[in-house]
Amino acid sequence: MSFEEMWAALLPVGRSAATGGYDRFVWTPSELECRAWFLDEARARSLDVEPDGNGNLFAWWYPSSGRRDGAVLTGSHLDSVPGGGAFDGPLGVVSAFAAIDLLRARGIEPDRPLGVGVFAEEEGARFGVACLGSRLLSGAIDPARARALTDGEGLTYAAVAEENGVDPAGIGRDDDLLGRIGCYVELHVEQGRALAPGTPVGVASAIIPHGRWRLDFTGEGNHAGTTRLIDRRDPMLPFASTVLAARASADRHDSVATIGKVRIVPGGVNAIPSAVSAWLDSRGPDERSVRATVSDVLEHARAAGLGHGVSVELTEESYTEVVDFNLELRDRVVKALGGVRALGGVPVLPTGAGHDAGILSAVLPTAMLFVRNPTGVSHAPAEHAETDDCLAGVEALASVLADLVRG
Amino acid sequence: MSFEEMWAALLPVGRSAATGGYDRFVWTPSELECRAWFLDEARARSLDVEPDGNGNLFAWWYPSSGRRDGAVLTGSHLDSVPGGGAFDGPLGVVSAFAAIDLLRARGIEPDRPLGVGVFAEEEGARFGVACLGSRLLSGAIDPARARALTDGEGLTYAAVAEENGVDPAGIGRDDDLLGRIGCYVELHVEQGRALAPGTPVGVASAIIPHGRWRLDFTGEGNHAGTTRLIDRRDPMLPFASTVLAARASADRHDSVATIGKVRIVPGGVNAIPSAVSAWLDSRGPDERSVRATVSDVLEHARAAGLGHGVSVELTEESYTEVVDFNLELRDRVVKALGGVRALGGVPVLPTGAGHDAGILSAVLPTAMLFVRNPTGVSHAPAEHAETDDCLAGVEALASVLADLVRG
Repeated sequence: MSFEEMWAALLPVGRSAATGGYDRFVWTPSELECRAWFLDEARARSLDVEPDGNGNLFAWWYPSSGRRDGAVLTGSHLDSVPGGGAFDGPLGVVSAFAAIDLLRARGIEPDRPLGVGVFAEEEGARFGVACLGSRLLSGAIDPARARALTDGEGLTYAAVAEENGVDPAGIGRDDDLLGRIGCYVELHVEQGRALAPGTPVGVASAIIPHGRWRLDFTGEGNHAGTTRLIDRRDPMLPFASTVLAARASADRHDSVATIGKVRIVPGGVNAIPSAVSAWLDSRGPDERSVRATVSDVLEHARAAGLGHGVSVELTEESYTEVVDFNLELRDRVVKALGGVRALGGVPVLPTGAGHDAGILSAVLPTAMLFVRNPTGVSHAPAEHAETDDCLAGVEALASVLADLVRG
Repeated sequence: MSFEEMWAALLPVGRSAATGGYDRFVWTPSELECRAWFLDEARARSLDVEPDGNGNLFAWWYPSSGRRDGAVLTGSHLDSVPGGGAFDGPLGVVSAFAAIDLLRARGIEPDRPLGVGVFAEEEGARFGVACLGSRLLSGAIDPARARALTDGEGLTYAAVAEENGVDPAGIGRDDDLLGRIGCYVELHVEQGRALAPGTPVGVASAIIPHGRWRLDFTGEGNHAGTTRLIDRRDPMLPFASTVLAARASADRHDSVATIGKVRIVPGGVNAIPSAVSAWLDSRGPDERSVRATVSDVLEHARAAGLGHGVSVELTEESYTEVVDFNLELRDRVVKALGGVRALGGVPVLPTGAGHDAGILSAVLPTAMLFVRNPTGVSHAPAEHAETDDCLAGVEALASVLADLVRG
């Protein structure tokens, strides 16, 4: 099947008729349907299907020499965020098969094993931990902790994995498999608007530092009708002012800052809130940029709180340092793309999103190719990439793989 | 029992040990305990207890002449908002009994029936409609609509009323009872800080106009990490700006404006929201003030939305016109208070809160006395009134009742 045929086959799986968004959560019917599609496509190409012990799927094109080590792995994931788009994940898997078809059409025989991987629970939408499959494989999460994770219905990862043919006692770092993989190259839809028209493909330099902080504004609950303005200690006001300050601070420090989750106590129409909690997501090109953003936001929030008799506390919920992709591999990828006419220039750019390639970079050389996203929308039904840009992505991936599987 | 003894007896009923707030919802165990207390106090004073057919309780001191018409009614309610204070409602009922004790101690015999009323579901905390008892009595709500109201557990008002000895088929406007009542005077804790120290009691001029509006900000959901600031259509930003504008607008138009309830879609930490809905509660001295506040807020919200590619819609959920209390009765109340030394001046002031006296003003002359609230907090555990001010309130109520029950 061509890229377009594969794409059309996956498109309806798990899509909400109402919103056009996808709910493909690991080991739910729609994600299992995607896995079945993957197995069919792999077998149609006579690839050797080898699930690992961590819920991930691999399909291998072994060289006729029988060589098993120094493998080149590509692929991505098939699960989605709630109400997600069609491209985040599946584009990398479909492109991997299409790239193999291109290599074969061009008579290229690999000297090393070439694999297509599907990593489980990349979005963390079911069990709460993003990149769970690659974390388990690379030893970035304690297997006992993973076994105890629960989904929205209270089912443990251990129970669900077992039901789906994965022995929960056997999950965890797989040195045998890791030892056979020489590098991992993941193609992914770009999730911002960093690629200009006429530039269908970019190469990742890094996953930028990112973190989550909670701001707690505590004032005084009161009657919305009878409390004079000057008597109010309304936490909603310094909170609101802080939302605007976060944007200004991000602008100043070349970062991004988002407040997308807010909790209001008591949350009644006719009650001045006693407390407002707001979660700040911030990411930037370096730690200084992120820390400066958060520090400015806190300073503003405290000053705004003072003016309203509202106290402000900041809690850091998580912070992840930068992932710098392997420089040697990146240079080789960029060089391989130099000869692809359809690409024009190939920008090297950082991303603000986490990926399995970021997790695996701790144990393997990894690289990423991004395909242009004209609207910049991601994690939402409007996520999009033009077919021509996707096909340029397949060309790019094929060129990179052709180079890497040599010798 | 003295005022202080009655107050102490009611104080622990339905109070949360954790927060100090009260959950006394109509016909729940704590509210039923308050009703039992009421019946005991009424019988201890040899008052004739006469529940009506709408869940309200009345205790009458009938004159020795046997007269039944032209009655003077006082009282308030015993239910609370969730986590409410001790004073909102009970202060008026306890003060009514204490005022009767004062009249009797002073040898005053009424020429007209003098009653103490307890109105059901004043806060609307269980079935969602405030002043439900007085609305039913005065015909301000369709009995069929009231019967179908449900509580948080899905129980209908009809079923709960029946379980508590009220025939749901018989609820509704009670012309016989209304025809016997000449006027209603409700004493209530003041719910702002409108009464200065040394001024324990005020008289209500009006319940100011009030309403609720919903503002829907619609932008574009997207990835919090990868979406550049300039590409965002984040509805949180114009919403936040509108919170600040609402405060400024209320300040400008001599109104109050509160945003205490907000809904965010999807509400994820790492997702730019696609939509934010905010409920605006606004009240002011006149309709012009409230309308101007809301109109300014909408204008600001639309302009702020434009700057972020976010659309804004306004929906009016409710609007209640001003209640002007009966001028003749108010003047008589003010005059009766002129001779009470403890009071100093007696300010006449509007309130921003709804009351049974406001509902009943459509069918009866009604008046209200307010007792000073030093902190202005209400609908919250910190709601307070000094005992001396409460006792001044009892003196004031006794003086008003002594005047009204004559002739």
